Amino acid sequence: MRAITLESDGLHYQASHAEPTPAEGEVLVQVLQAGICETDLQLAQGYMGFRGILGHEFVGIAQAGTHAGRRVVGEINCNCRVCPTCQAGRPTHCPHRTVIGIDRHDGAFAQSVAIPEHNLHVVPEGVTDDQALFTEPLAAAFEILQQVAIESTDRIAILGDGRLGYLSAQVLSSVTDRITVFGKHGVKLLRFGHRGYEVVQIPSTDPVELPHHKFDVVVDCTGSTTGLPMAIHLVRPRGTVVLKTTVADRHELSLASIVIDEISVVGSRCGPFATALDALAGGQVDVDGLITDRYSLDQVNPAFASAVNPNSFKVVFEIGSASD
Amino acid sequence: MRAITLESDGLHYQASHAEPTPAEGEVLVQVLQAGICETDLQLAQGYMGFRGILGHEFVGIAQAGTHAGRRVVGEINCNCRVCPTCQAGRPTHCPHRTVIGIDRHDGAFAQSVAIPEHNLHVVPEGVTDDQALFTEPLAAAFEILQQVAIESTDRIAILGDGRLGYLSAQVLSSVTDRITVFGKHGVKLLRFGHRGYEVVQIPSTDPVELPHHKFDVVVDCTGSTTGLPMAIHLVRPRGTVVLKTTVADRHELSLASIVIDEISVVGSRCGPFATALDALAGGQVDVDGLITDRYSLDQVNPAFASAVNPNSFKVVFEIGSASD
Ligand SMILES: [Zn+2]
Ligand SMILES: [Zn+2]
Ligand SMILES: [Zn+2]
Ligand SMILES: [Zn+2]
Repeated sequence: MRAITLESDGLHYQASHAEPTPAEGEVLVQVLQAGICETDLQLAQGYMGFRGILGHEFVGIAQAGTHAGRRVVGEINCNCRVCPTCQAGRPTHCPHRTVIGIDRHDGAFAQSVAIPEHNLHVVPEGVTDDQALFTEPLAAAFEILQQVAIESTDRIAILGDGRLGYLSAQVLSSVTDRITVFGKHGVKLLRFGHRGYEVVQIPSTDPVELPHHKFDVVVDCTGSTTGLPMAIHLVRPRGTVVLKTTVADRHELSLASIVIDEISVVGSRCGPFATALDALAGGQVDVDGLITDRYSLDQVNPAFASAVNPNSFKVVFEIGSASD
Repeated sequence: MRAITLESDGLHYQASHAEPTPAEGEVLVQVLQAGICETDLQLAQGYMGFRGILGHEFVGIAQAGTHAGRRVVGEINCNCRVCPTCQAGRPTHCPHRTVIGIDRHDGAFAQSVAIPEHNLHVVPEGVTDDQALFTEPLAAAFEILQQVAIESTDRIAILGDGRLGYLSAQVLSSVTDRITVFGKHGVKLLRFGHRGYEVVQIPSTDPVELPHHKFDVVVDCTGSTTGLPMAIHLVRPRGTVVLKTTVADRHELSLASIVIDEISVVGSRCGPFATALDALAGGQVDVDGLITDRYSLDQVNPAFASAVNPNSFKVVFEIGSASD
């Protein structure tokens, strides 16, 4: 099959890679589309030392099991279901877990990917393939509401004008309309402005010029080490900073104000797929027009170059079709 | 009056400093005893640029107002009571606040200190001066219970074998008996061992040798930049790290695991004085024997030298007596 692998010397298109062999409890999924996300860019630079087939945001057709023949998306953590962490209701933190396309499990930049059957969710009729591709990041955005009690009067700052910021803004706007988005890219911020969010373009990253202690909740979707210091500057005393994006680089920052201002910093990663699919099916979240570029698997280099372009929102590999 | 001031060239004993002039709403308190705390050591090294009379942990006798003639302790934040932050119920975060002995307000290493009357709390009959000196740090320990929902089955790690660690361990032991204390000082750890807490001496600070993901809640009372990376290593996924001590130095650390493990990091500073005084009066918390050294104000240099000695728990200035 066709696939994109990450090796010690970088990304490679493979014209005839071996098909995956499903492990116990796994089923094969024929991949229709798969998106490149920030984590993929970091993995490609050596983060976590991943080797194998990349890709963890996908929509495909289940080839076996209960959902055989149906369109599915898949949660990315492959947990053991029996260890104390799994039994305690935190399967996404299973210490024995592998992670699709991220940690010791081949991913979805391929014609076929093996996924644990209990990770699969059927995509509702009315949700297009393009929309379904956003299930994983949208679920991650909904996770914010599960972790932080947000009130209708809360002032929210979203840091980062990318895709996760856009989805987070829409999810949070179901609770409060006091949302301000801080981003560096005028073109991307237009999209936020069109939805009615207040936008602030930050040409410099000097936090002293930004409003101090003005927001109840700040969501850092920057994927950059500049995000947390900025968030700490913006959030009010006893407010909450939600860290949404992993940053491989080491931070160098003063944490004294976390204590002095009694701030909570909450790490936030995966979220509820079912909630995200419901929101897509119900039209509560708009993801149309977010896919800015489409490539085939053999175009790995232009695709990744496009994904690091600050003006691109979402870059997608078109891999198969239902009639294949 | 006698006092200790912090000037640009360091600490000075003043044999005849001017008496403080109480501002609107303030009353004079005749200081009986005042303790040196970690923050004082940092201030003496230039943290926050404080100039004036140091000292914020004290017990004294109110000279005027409702509590005139009675023994009192005082909260340290002098807030405006009218700004939006104060009106929103966060007076300790008032942006206009001064802080006794810490920020633009003379402190208690003196025979007399001016304190806002609404900051004063009467010390109950059965609580000794020595015990009352621990009201402020004990209140800070009780703050943990207000910020984090701790269950009886939770495994707690306390980092730091100093006074705040000792008070935090006692406060948390009212909820769970699964408490482990990590410290560097064998002599100090003995005190924890005697109370039945599990203790772990850490000769090196290499976190790899420490148990990984084993605690539901980790309280960092180290006052050191080594505390947070160690806490992140010890806490379980979706667990909580409570940062209790301000560190003036900049941290250099990787925060990726905060996101990956979905950890909450909660800054925690001041706490409820009334709760602390109740606990002292009711004998729920034992602070006897914690004062390891006593000095007069003119012994400022040996007193501060003693306070940085890792084997000393609490160093106190004896300043006045009720019969003065
Ligand atoms: Zn992703
Ligand atoms: Zn497991
Ligand atoms: Zn103190
Ligand atoms: Zn105020």
